[in-house]
Amino acid sequence: MANMDKLAVLVNTFGSSLISVGQEVGLAVALNKSQVSQGVKVTNICAASLIGIVGKEIQGTAVVMLDQTGFEAVVSAMSGGMIQSNPQDPLAMSVVGELSNMVSGRALIQTALSGVDVTPPQLLVGENIRNVPNQTPEVKCFTLPFTLQPSGVLYLVLSFSTS
Amino acid sequence: MANMDKLAVLVNTFGSSLISVGQEVGLAVALNKSQVSQGVKVTNICAASLIGIVGKEIQGTAVVMLDQTGFEAVVSAMSGGMIQSNPQDPLAMSVVGELSNMVSGRALIQTALSGVDVTPPQLLVGENIRNVPNQTPEVKCFTLPFTLQPSGVLYLVLSFSTS
Repeated sequence: MANMDKLAVLVNTFGSSLISVGQEVGLAVALNKSQVSQGVKVTNICAASLIGIVGKEIQGTAVVMLDQTGFEAVVSAMSGGMIQSNPQDPLAMSVVGELSNMVSGRALIQTALSGVDVTPPQLLVGENIRNVPNQTPEVKCFTLPFTLQPSGVLYLVLSFSTS
Repeated sequence: MANMDKLAVLVNTFGSSLISVGQEVGLAVALNKSQVSQGVKVTNICAASLIGIVGKEIQGTAVVMLDQTGFEAVVSAMSGGMIQSNPQDPLAMSVVGELSNMVSGRALIQTALSGVDVTPPQLLVGENIRNVPNQTPEVKCFTLPFTLQPSGVLYLVLSFSTS
């Protein structure tokens, strides 16, 4: 139960971090609270940035996933329209990596978990990318869906095991 | 230079770990040495398992990537033909996660890096999944392509920054 509380705080903190980072970088992002779910529920993903998180109390992954229009919204907002939003372009994808870095960094600082370290973002592109939930019972998975402006969807998929 | 040496040892150890784990689980796997490359070079990937690696000297990601026939070869060999090789099936994908766990665990023990911890595998499916190399100069990326029996390809994509 204590572990589930810790996870709930972490998941909420990731959600609020994305919103506050979005405000700072000029990306209008709204959490679809009614669609927050345990497990994985993503559709039409063409770009993903994964950050591994390892600490004394927690190990897991935070994944920012975007559909095509969501990808365009993120790259356009964060680069001030200076970078073409082509997922094949490593520079455009690095913008998504930077967003996931900022969100994870802020969330982990705010939760004040001890001794947490993260990996550099691993960037993936493709068609219809989906996470497959881990079968290990100690790994809990959460999907936070966000609506972007002018259009597009961003999913924050969080998988954590606590110890 | 010392860092590049450390990385070269790590990359080689991941390669030999995959071969020895393959032998133990009945998966015939051969490294295409001539095609080992710095950077990312993968095609036709439908399934991936990512493990985040965090230590005092190193941070990064090890990704096992499979094409459709490679996925079938891995699931069939490791489950003794007991599990249908459908990427939509979390149980079949968990076999790929287990393979990446075994390979990473063995490689990290053999390189004897201090204080290294790993994330649980993050499993992804999709079409034409590709890694996009990180633009940060301190992150180095390597692709090790393996041929599987009876057919299929497995790529080990390693991205590490050393400190």
